[in-house]
Amino acid sequence: MKDKIVVALGGNALGKTPEEQLELVKNTAKPIVDLIQHGHEVILAHGNGPQVGMINLAMENSATNGGGTPEMPFPECGAMSQGYIGYHLQNAIREELLNREMSNPVATVVTQVLVDKDDEAFTNPTKPIGSFYTKEEADKLIEEKGFDMVEDSGRGYRRVVPSPRPIDVIEKETVKALVEANNVVITVGGGGIPVIKEGNSLVGVPAVIDKDFASAKIAEILDADYLIILTAVEKVAINFGKENEEWLSEMSIEEANKYIGEKQFAPGSMLPKVKACMEFASSKKGRKALITSLDKAEAGIEGKTGTIIIKK
Amino acid sequence: MKDKIVVALGGNALGKTPEEQLELVKNTAKPIVDLIQHGHEVILAHGNGPQVGMINLAMENSATNGGGTPEMPFPECGAMSQGYIGYHLQNAIREELLNREMSNPVATVVTQVLVDKDDEAFTNPTKPIGSFYTKEEADKLIEEKGFDMVEDSGRGYRRVVPSPRPIDVIEKETVKALVEANNVVITVGGGGIPVIKEGNSLVGVPAVIDKDFASAKIAEILDADYLIILTAVEKVAINFGKENEEWLSEMSIEEANKYIGEKQFAPGSMLPKVKACMEFASSKKGRKALITSLDKAEAGIEGKTGTIIIKK
Repeated sequence: MKDKIVVALGGNALGKTPEEQLELVKNTAKPIVDLIQHGHEVILAHGNGPQVGMINLAMENSATNGGGTPEMPFPECGAMSQGYIGYHLQNAIREELLNREMSNPVATVVTQVLVDKDDEAFTNPTKPIGSFYTKEEADKLIEEKGFDMVEDSGRGYRRVVPSPRPIDVIEKETVKALVEANNVVITVGGGGIPVIKEGNSLVGVPAVIDKDFASAKIAEILDADYLIILTAVEKVAINFGKENEEWLSEMSIEEANKYIGEKQFAPGSMLPKVKACMEFASSKKGRKALITSLDKAEAGIEGKTGTIIIKK
Repeated sequence: MKDKIVVALGGNALGKTPEEQLELVKNTAKPIVDLIQHGHEVILAHGNGPQVGMINLAMENSATNGGGTPEMPFPECGAMSQGYIGYHLQNAIREELLNREMSNPVATVVTQVLVDKDDEAFTNPTKPIGSFYTKEEADKLIEEKGFDMVEDSGRGYRRVVPSPRPIDVIEKETVKALVEANNVVITVGGGGIPVIKEGNSLVGVPAVIDKDFASAKIAEILDADYLIILTAVEKVAINFGKENEEWLSEMSIEEANKYIGEKQFAPGSMLPKVKACMEFASSKKGRKALITSLDKAEAGIEGKTGTIIIKK
């Protein structure tokens, strides 16, 4: 049976340099193409934390050190990261398809995701981006650029940006048309370029949309059967690292809510993954969300491993 | 009558900073949307000279000055520039469409263009990119990185890369599907990311494909009716700036060849535009190529101005 599957890949799985990324995308391509080879329609979403941080930092370094290049706003850095990551991912998937004598087109769509300008995240920026600064440098950035700066785990001060919720995917009709035309689509890179509406205009905002929530959103819009959120572990655990540690094969929405109440899942790590899965699984009867590792994606779809989150 | 039109926009028309670009794309959007409003299918190609140069320079500045960011190969910088420019262009066009109560999706496709690894351009790099260096710095780059460096008009030494001919557009099926689905497609940004084939693999090469030739190639592939190459002047001139200066309304392939023999067109400026138009116009009976300014694009299609290059 052919399923429509949105796969969300972490930005950390893509490395810190172009050379690392070029190698790592090859590993990513194999299980993705396994799914395609078995008849599934695959839409690939990905994070961009290390990559957009690197681009933003390089632009900032060059602009502030007399490099003769302009300052680059954060949404534009996000757009660059989509081109940079998409280029490598689309090539790796294309090559793996050709190796198996398949010829689906692979396409990266520069994708914007709509957020609400009144999202409460804008009054409480929490997502650290870019480099570390001293207290003095941080104070200067607050004064001169209006940045929000916080002390980050004793390592220095960092800029924090809001992490608003995705409301809509601006390029959804494009993605739909490409999925229908048998393309493997790479979209909502880095959670999408965050934009707010001002009349007919879209305005980029310095923010980072969680890629798990953006993936759940595009999965809903595309009426996908599965959302697979890839992570470093094969299954979700409760009582992680403790004596009574338990790896879960299935979680209902009710169970997930209970575990969240017990603070079983780490914020910024497993928690947003579980929450994004709950959103997708709750959005329509029959929709299944799966959390597992890259190499277990297909076994997970076959019900052999991973943690399935479903509405009962 | 509905025509399929590939419009090629110069990178210099997009400015040097994100703020400039954001303003300039608004001017670009209006004549593009005029064409769409009158029922034409529009595919937009664009240059990226100043933009990829800026990105490449910033990455280089940061990497070589201890900025903690990696060196970024030129093809990856090209991919970034497609995201950066596409994001602004797609938004400006979307807004202008909505202002006129039209809702065509607008999509930027990260696009690779195939070149021949045996293209003679690779033995004769001519396209200057990035920043200026002293003789000593240039010698060091030649030794350490194997770059080709040339003295550029008394302003210092610059890296030069090859400018090979486009053979094919890798993402052509994606572009076709989107045009059929009524999308306004932005593609072959900066002439496309130049790649060569190694078995099933595509390998990015440090090169710049002329955006006019890449535009002619995608226009051929899409079986477009028109290729419009936008430039700073309304028409092509012969004896430009001289007493017997003559603005041309039409040029046959034979006339164009004659003028090229007379060195009427400046290399790196009007010459590649005329040559790209000749290629497209020669490729099939009825195909028309037009060189004109942005604000005259529609009048040009209506036969009122611009220089039409056709096969007689």
